[in-house]
Amino acid sequence: MLVLGIDPGTAICGYGLVEMRGNHLKAIHYGAVITSPKSKPQDRLLKIHTEIDTLIKEYQPDIMGVEQLFFNRNITTAIPVGQARGVVLLTAAANNLEVVERTPLQVKQAVVGYGKATKEQVIYMVEKLLNLPKKPHPDDVADALAVAICTTHCVNNIVWRNKL
Amino acid sequence: MLVLGIDPGTAICGYGLVEMRGNHLKAIHYGAVITSPKSKPQDRLLKIHTEIDTLIKEYQPDIMGVEQLFFNRNITTAIPVGQARGVVLLTAAANNLEVVERTPLQVKQAVVGYGKATKEQVIYMVEKLLNLPKKPHPDDVADALAVAICTTHCVNNIVWRNKL
Repeated sequence: MLVLGIDPGTAICGYGLVEMRGNHLKAIHYGAVITSPKSKPQDRLLKIHTEIDTLIKEYQPDIMGVEQLFFNRNITTAIPVGQARGVVLLTAAANNLEVVERTPLQVKQAVVGYGKATKEQVIYMVEKLLNLPKKPHPDDVADALAVAICTTHCVNNIVWRNKL
Repeated sequence: MLVLGIDPGTAICGYGLVEMRGNHLKAIHYGAVITSPKSKPQDRLLKIHTEIDTLIKEYQPDIMGVEQLFFNRNITTAIPVGQARGVVLLTAAANNLEVVERTPLQVKQAVVGYGKATKEQVIYMVEKLLNLPKKPHPDDVADALAVAICTTHCVNNIVWRNKL
Protein backbone atom coordinates (compact mmCIF):
# COMPACT_ATOMS: atom_id res chain seq x y z
CA MET A 1 0.00 0.00 0.00
CA LEU A 2 1.38 3.38 -1.06
CA VAL A 3 0.45 6.44 1.02
CA LEU A 4 0.93 10.08 0.02
CA GLY A 5 1.34 12.31 3.07
CA ILE A 6 0.93 16.06 2.64
CA ASP A 7 1.84 19.00 4.87
CA PRO A 8 -0.05 21.82 3.13
CA GLY A 9 1.19 25.40 2.97
CA THR A 10 1.18 28.17 0.36
CA ALA A 11 4.93 28.92 0.58
CA ILE A 12 6.09 25.32 1.19
CA CYS A 13 3.86 22.29 0.62
CA GLY A 14 5.67 19.17 1.82
CA TYR A 15 4.91 15.72 0.40
CA GLY A 16 6.11 12.20 1.08
CA LEU A 17 5.27 8.84 -0.47
CA VAL A 18 5.63 5.94 1.97
CA GLU A 19 5.10 2.27 1.18
CA MET A 20 4.52 -0.59 3.64
CA ARG A 21 6.62 -3.55 2.49
CA GLY A 22 6.00 -6.56 4.71
CA ASN A 23 6.58 -5.12 8.15
CA HIS A 24 8.82 -2.24 7.24
CA LEU A 25 8.26 1.21 5.81
CA LYS A 26 10.02 2.63 2.78
CA ALA A 27 10.13 6.24 1.59
CA ILE A 28 9.53 6.08 -2.17
CA HIS A 29 9.79 9.79 -2.95
CA TYR A 30 9.63 13.01 -0.96
CA GLY A 31 10.13 16.74 -1.36
CA ALA A 32 8.24 20.04 -1.33
CA VAL A 33 6.43 22.35 -3.71
CA ILE A 34 7.99 25.77 -3.12
CA THR A 35 6.21 28.89 -4.37
CA SER A 36 7.51 32.45 -4.55
CA PRO A 37 6.02 35.19 -2.34
CA LYS A 38 6.43 37.42 -5.42
CA SER A 39 3.80 35.36 -7.28
CA LYS A 40 0.09 36.08 -7.00
CA PRO A 41 -1.76 33.86 -4.45
CA GLN A 42 -3.81 32.18 -7.20
CA ASP A 43 -0.67 31.38 -9.22
CA ARG A 44 0.99 29.86 -6.13
CA LEU A 45 -2.09 27.66 -5.59
CA LEU A 46 -2.07 26.62 -9.26
CA LYS A 47 1.59 25.55 -8.92
CA ILE A 48 0.71 23.43 -5.86
CA HIS A 49 -2.23 21.85 -7.70
CA THR A 50 -0.18 21.10 -10.84
CA GLU A 51 2.74 19.51 -8.98
CA ILE A 52 0.62 17.41 -6.58
CA ASP A 53 -1.58 16.33 -9.50
CA THR A 54 1.53 15.21 -11.46
CA LEU A 55 2.78 13.33 -8.37
CA ILE A 56 -0.53 11.47 -7.96
CA LYS A 57 -0.70 10.56 -11.65
CA GLU A 58 2.93 9.36 -11.67
CA TYR A 59 3.01 7.34 -8.42
CA GLN A 60 -0.69 6.32 -8.19
CA PRO A 61 -0.89 6.25 -4.36
CA ASP A 62 -3.72 4.27 -2.71
CA ILE A 63 -4.53 6.92 -0.15
CA MET A 64 -3.70 10.52 0.84
CA GLY A 65 -3.03 11.50 4.46
CA VAL A 66 -3.40 15.13 5.58
CA GLU A 67 -3.16 16.66 9.02
CA GLN A 68 -6.25 18.20 10.56
CA LEU A 69 -5.71 21.87 11.28
CA PHE A 70 -6.22 23.63 14.59
CA PHE A 71 -5.54 27.32 14.85
CA ASN A 72 -5.80 28.24 18.48
CA ARG A 73 -2.38 29.85 18.30
CA ASN A 74 -1.22 31.11 14.93
CA ILE A 75 -4.34 32.60 13.36
CA THR A 76 -2.46 34.78 10.84
CA THR A 77 -1.39 31.71 8.84
CA ALA A 78 -4.84 30.07 8.97
CA ILE A 79 -6.02 31.56 5.66
CA PRO A 80 -3.01 30.75 3.41
CA VAL A 81 -2.65 27.27 4.97
CA GLY A 82 -6.41 26.67 4.64
CA GLN A 83 -6.27 27.79 0.97
CA ALA A 84 -3.39 25.42 0.18
CA ARG A 85 -5.13 22.60 2.07
CA GLY A 86 -8.32 23.18 0.04
CA VAL A 87 -6.35 22.90 -3.19
CA VAL A 88 -4.65 19.68 -2.01
CA LEU A 89 -8.01 18.10 -1.03
CA LEU A 90 -9.53 19.14 -4.36
CA THR A 91 -6.58 17.58 -6.23
CA ALA A 92 -7.18 14.30 -4.36
CA ALA A 93 -10.92 14.35 -5.16
CA ALA A 94 -10.29 15.14 -8.83
CA ASN A 95 -8.08 11.99 -8.95
CA ASN A 96 -10.55 9.80 -7.01
CA LEU A 97 -7.97 9.46 -4.24
CA GLU A 98 -9.31 8.65 -0.75
CA VAL A 99 -8.29 11.10 2.00
CA VAL A 100 -7.57 10.23 5.64
CA GLU A 101 -7.37 13.12 8.10
CA ARG A 102 -5.18 12.71 11.19
CA THR A 103 -4.78 15.05 14.17
CA PRO A 104 -1.29 16.35 15.12
CA LEU A 105 -1.63 14.24 18.32
CA GLN A 106 -2.24 11.05 16.30
CA VAL A 107 0.72 11.82 14.03
CA LYS A 108 3.09 12.35 16.97
CA GLN A 109 1.82 9.22 18.73
CA ALA A 110 2.31 7.11 15.59
CA VAL A 111 5.82 8.39 14.90
CA VAL A 112 7.30 9.09 18.34
CA GLY A 113 4.89 7.19 20.59
CA TYR A 114 4.14 10.36 22.54
CA GLY A 115 1.43 12.90 21.61
CA LYS A 116 3.34 15.88 22.96
CA ALA A 117 6.61 15.12 21.17
CA THR A 118 8.69 18.08 19.93
CA LYS A 119 9.27 18.88 16.25
CA GLU A 120 12.90 17.70 16.61
CA GLN A 121 11.77 14.33 18.00
CA VAL A 122 9.36 13.87 15.07
CA ILE A 123 12.09 14.69 12.51
CA TYR A 124 14.56 12.34 14.27
CA MET A 125 12.08 9.45 14.31
CA VAL A 126 11.01 9.98 10.67
CA GLU A 127 14.69 9.73 9.65
CA LYS A 128 15.16 6.51 11.69
CA LEU A 129 11.85 4.79 10.80
CA LEU A 130 12.36 5.34 7.06
CA ASN A 131 16.13 4.78 7.21
CA LEU A 132 16.78 8.03 5.34
CA PRO A 133 20.36 8.97 4.35
CA LYS A 134 19.97 12.35 6.07
CA LYS A 135 17.48 14.56 7.95
CA PRO A 136 14.65 15.55 5.58
CA HIS A 137 14.66 19.27 4.83
CA PRO A 138 12.73 21.58 5.11
CA ASP A 139 10.71 20.53 8.18
CA ASP A 140 7.55 20.41 6.02
CA VAL A 141 8.96 17.35 4.22
CA ALA A 142 9.51 15.55 7.54
CA ASP A 143 5.97 16.51 8.59
CA ALA A 144 4.54 15.13 5.34
CA LEU A 145 6.46 11.85 5.83
CA ALA A 146 5.24 11.69 9.45
CA VAL A 147 1.62 12.05 8.26
CA ALA A 148 2.24 9.31 5.67
CA ILE A 149 3.63 6.96 8.38
CA CYS A 150 0.67 7.69 10.67
CA THR A 151 -1.82 7.16 7.82
CA THR A 152 -0.17 3.82 6.92
CA HIS A 153 -0.54 2.60 10.55
CA CYS A 154 -4.13 3.84 10.71
CA VAL A 155 -5.20 2.12 7.47
CA ASN A 156 -3.35 -1.10 8.38
CA ASN A 157 -5.13 -1.18 11.76
CA ILE A 158 -8.51 -0.88 10.03
CA VAL A 159 -7.60 -3.67 7.53
CA TRP A 160 -6.34 -5.87 10.41
CA ARG A 161 -9.47 -5.27 12.53
CA ASN A 162 -11.72 -6.12 9.60
CA LYS A 163 -9.96 -9.47 9.30
CA LEU A 164 -10.77 -10.45 12.91
CA MET B 1 -16.74 44.64 -18.63
CA LEU B 2 -18.13 41.54 -16.94
CA VAL B 3 -17.13 40.90 -13.31
CA LEU B 4 -17.61 37.64 -11.39
CA GLY B 5 -17.92 38.28 -7.65
CA ILE B 6 -17.50 35.34 -5.27
CA ASP B 7 -18.33 34.90 -1.59
CA PRO B 8 -16.44 31.68 -0.82
CA GLY B 9 -17.66 29.08 1.64
CA THR B 10 -17.67 25.28 1.81
CA ALA B 11 -21.41 24.95 2.59
CA ILE B 12 -22.58 27.89 0.44
CA CYS B 13 -20.40 29.58 -2.16
CA GLY B 14 -22.21 32.64 -3.52
CA TYR B 15 -21.53 34.01 -7.00
CA GLY B 16 -22.72 36.99 -9.01
CA LEU B 17 -21.94 38.19 -12.53
CA VAL B 18 -22.28 41.97 -12.91
CA GLU B 19 -21.79 43.98 -16.07
CA MET B 20 -21.19 47.71 -16.43
CA ARG B 21 -23.33 48.97 -19.33
CA GLY B 22 -22.65 52.64 -19.93
CA ASN B 23 -23.18 54.15 -16.50
CA HIS B 24 -25.42 51.49 -15.02
CA LEU B 25 -24.86 48.05 -13.56
CA LYS B 26 -26.67 44.89 -14.62
CA ALA B 27 -26.78 41.52 -12.85
CA ILE B 28 -26.27 38.95 -15.63
CA HIS B 29 -26.50 35.80 -13.49
CA TYR B 30 -26.28 34.97 -9.80
CA GLY B 31 -26.75 32.10 -7.39
CA ALA B 32 -24.86 29.79 -5.05
CA VAL B 33 -23.08 26.46 -5.09
CA ILE B 34 -24.59 24.50 -2.20
CA THR B 35 -22.81 21.42 -0.86
CA SER B 36 -24.08 18.83 1.59
CA PRO B 37 -22.52 18.48 5.06
CA LYS B 38 -22.98 14.72 4.51
CA SER B 39 -20.41 14.80 1.69
CA LYS B 40 -16.67 14.49 2.33
CA PRO B 41 -14.79 17.83 2.50
CA GLN B 42 -12.80 17.01 -0.67
CA ASP B 43 -16.00 16.17 -2.60
CA ARG B 44 -17.60 19.45 -1.49
CA LEU B 45 -14.53 21.32 -2.76
CA LEU B 46 -14.64 19.42 -6.06
CA LYS B 47 -18.30 20.45 -6.52
CA ILE B 48 -17.38 24.12 -5.92
CA HIS B 49 -14.49 23.87 -8.40
CA THR B 50 -16.61 22.17 -11.07
CA GLU B 51 -19.52 24.63 -10.86
CA ILE B 52 -17.35 27.79 -10.74
CA ASP B 53 -15.22 26.43 -13.60
CA THR B 54 -18.37 25.84 -15.70
CA LEU B 55 -19.58 29.37 -14.87
CA ILE B 56 -16.27 30.93 -15.97
CA LYS B 57 -16.18 28.93 -19.21
CA GLU B 58 -19.83 29.78 -20.01
CA TYR B 59 -19.86 33.52 -19.19
CA GLN B 60 -16.16 34.35 -19.82
CA PRO B 61 -15.89 37.14 -17.22
CA ASP B 62 -13.05 39.68 -17.56
CA ILE B 63 -12.16 39.66 -13.89
CA MET B 64 -12.96 37.89 -10.61
CA GLY B 65 -13.54 39.79 -7.37
CA VAL B 66 -13.11 38.06 -3.98
CA GLU B 67 -13.27 39.46 -0.47
CA GLN B 68 -10.14 39.45 1.64
CA LEU B 69 -10.63 37.41 4.78
CA PHE B 70 -10.02 38.53 8.34
CA PHE B 71 -10.64 36.15 11.19
CA ASN B 72 -10.27 38.11 14.38
CA ARG B 73 -13.68 36.89 15.48
CA ASN B 74 -14.91 33.62 14.07
CA ILE B 75 -11.82 31.40 13.95
CA THR B 76 -13.74 28.10 13.78
CA THR B 77 -14.90 28.83 10.23
CA ALA B 78 -11.45 30.05 9.06
CA ILE B 79 -10.33 26.63 7.79
CA PRO B 80 -13.40 25.61 5.70
CA VAL B 81 -13.76 29.15 4.31
CA GLY B 82 -10.01 29.28 3.57
CA GLN B 83 -10.21 25.90 1.82
CA ALA B 84 -13.14 27.02 -0.38
CA ARG B 85 -11.36 30.32 -1.10
CA GLY B 86 -8.23 28.43 -2.17
CA VAL B 87 -10.28 26.33 -4.59
CA VAL B 88 -11.97 29.44 -6.04
CA LEU B 89 -8.62 31.23 -6.55
CA LEU B 90 -7.15 28.10 -8.16
CA THR B 91 -10.14 27.86 -10.52
CA ALA B 92 -9.54 31.48 -11.58
CA ALA B 93 -5.81 30.85 -12.18
CA ALA B 94 -6.53 27.67 -14.17
CA ASN B 95 -8.77 29.79 -16.44
CA ASN B 96 -6.27 32.69 -16.73
CA LEU B 97 -8.79 34.93 -14.98
CA GLU B 98 -7.39 37.98 -13.15
CA VAL B 99 -8.34 38.26 -9.47
CA VAL B 100 -8.99 41.47 -7.54
CA GLU B 101 -9.12 41.22 -3.74
CA ARG B 102 -11.24 43.73 -1.83
CA THR B 103 -11.56 44.26 1.91
CA PRO B 104 -15.00 44.06 3.58
CA LEU B 105 -14.61 47.82 4.30
CA GLN B 106 -14.06 48.59 0.59
CA VAL B 107 -17.07 46.46 -0.38
CA LYS B 108 -19.38 48.22 2.10
CA GLN B 109 -18.08 51.64 1.07
CA ALA B 110 -18.65 50.87 -2.62
CA VAL B 111 -22.19 49.52 -2.13
CA VAL B 112 -23.59 51.51 0.82
CA GLY B 113 -21.11 54.42 0.97
CA TYR B 114 -20.32 53.60 4.58
CA GLY B 115 -17.59 51.12 5.70
CA LYS B 116 -19.47 50.04 8.82
CA ALA B 117 -22.79 49.31 7.09
CA THR B 118 -24.86 46.39 8.38
CA LYS B 119 -25.51 43.19 6.40
CA GLU B 120 -29.13 44.31 5.89
CA GLN B 121 -28.02 47.66 4.43
CA VAL B 122 -25.68 45.86 2.00
CA ILE B 123 -28.46 43.50 0.85
CA TYR B 124 -30.92 46.40 0.44
CA MET B 125 -28.44 48.42 -1.66
CA VAL B 126 -27.45 45.43 -3.83
CA GLU B 127 -31.15 44.92 -4.65
CA LYS B 128 -31.59 48.63 -5.51
CA LEU B 129 -28.32 49.16 -7.44
CA LEU B 130 -28.90 46.10 -9.63
CA ASN B 131 -32.66 46.64 -9.86
CA LEU B 132 -33.34 43.03 -8.82
CA PRO B 133 -36.93 41.70 -8.79
CA LYS B 134 -36.46 40.58 -5.14
CA LYS B 135 -33.93 40.36 -2.34
CA PRO B 136 -31.13 37.94 -3.31
CA HIS B 137 -31.15 34.81 -1.17
CA PRO B 138 -29.18 33.38 0.65
CA ASP B 139 -27.10 36.30 1.99
CA ASP B 140 -23.99 34.81 0.33
CA VAL B 141 -25.47 35.66 -3.09
CA ALA B 142 -25.97 39.29 -2.05
CA ASP B 143 -22.40 39.35 -0.70
CA ALA B 144 -21.05 37.96 -3.98
CA LEU B 145 -22.98 40.61 -5.96
CA ALA B 146 -21.69 43.31 -3.56
CA VAL B 147 -18.09 42.18 -4.22
CA ALA B 148 -18.79 42.24 -7.97
CA ILE B 149 -20.14 45.83 -7.74
CA CYS B 150 -17.13 46.92 -5.67
CA THR B 151 -14.69 45.25 -8.10
CA THR B 152 -16.41 46.94 -11.09
CA HIS B 153 -15.96 50.37 -9.44
CA CYS B 154 -12.37 49.59 -8.51
CA VAL B 155 -11.38 48.48 -12.02
CA ASN B 156 -13.22 51.39 -13.66
CA ASN B 157 -11.35 53.82 -11.39
CA ILE B 158 -8.01 52.33 -12.47
CA VAL B 159 -8.99 52.51 -16.18
CA TRP B 160 -10.18 56.11 -15.72
CA ARG B 161 -7.00 57.15 -13.86
CA ASN B 162 -4.82 55.61 -16.55
CA LYS B 163 -6.61 57.75 -19.15
CA LEU B 164 -5.68 61.01 -17.33
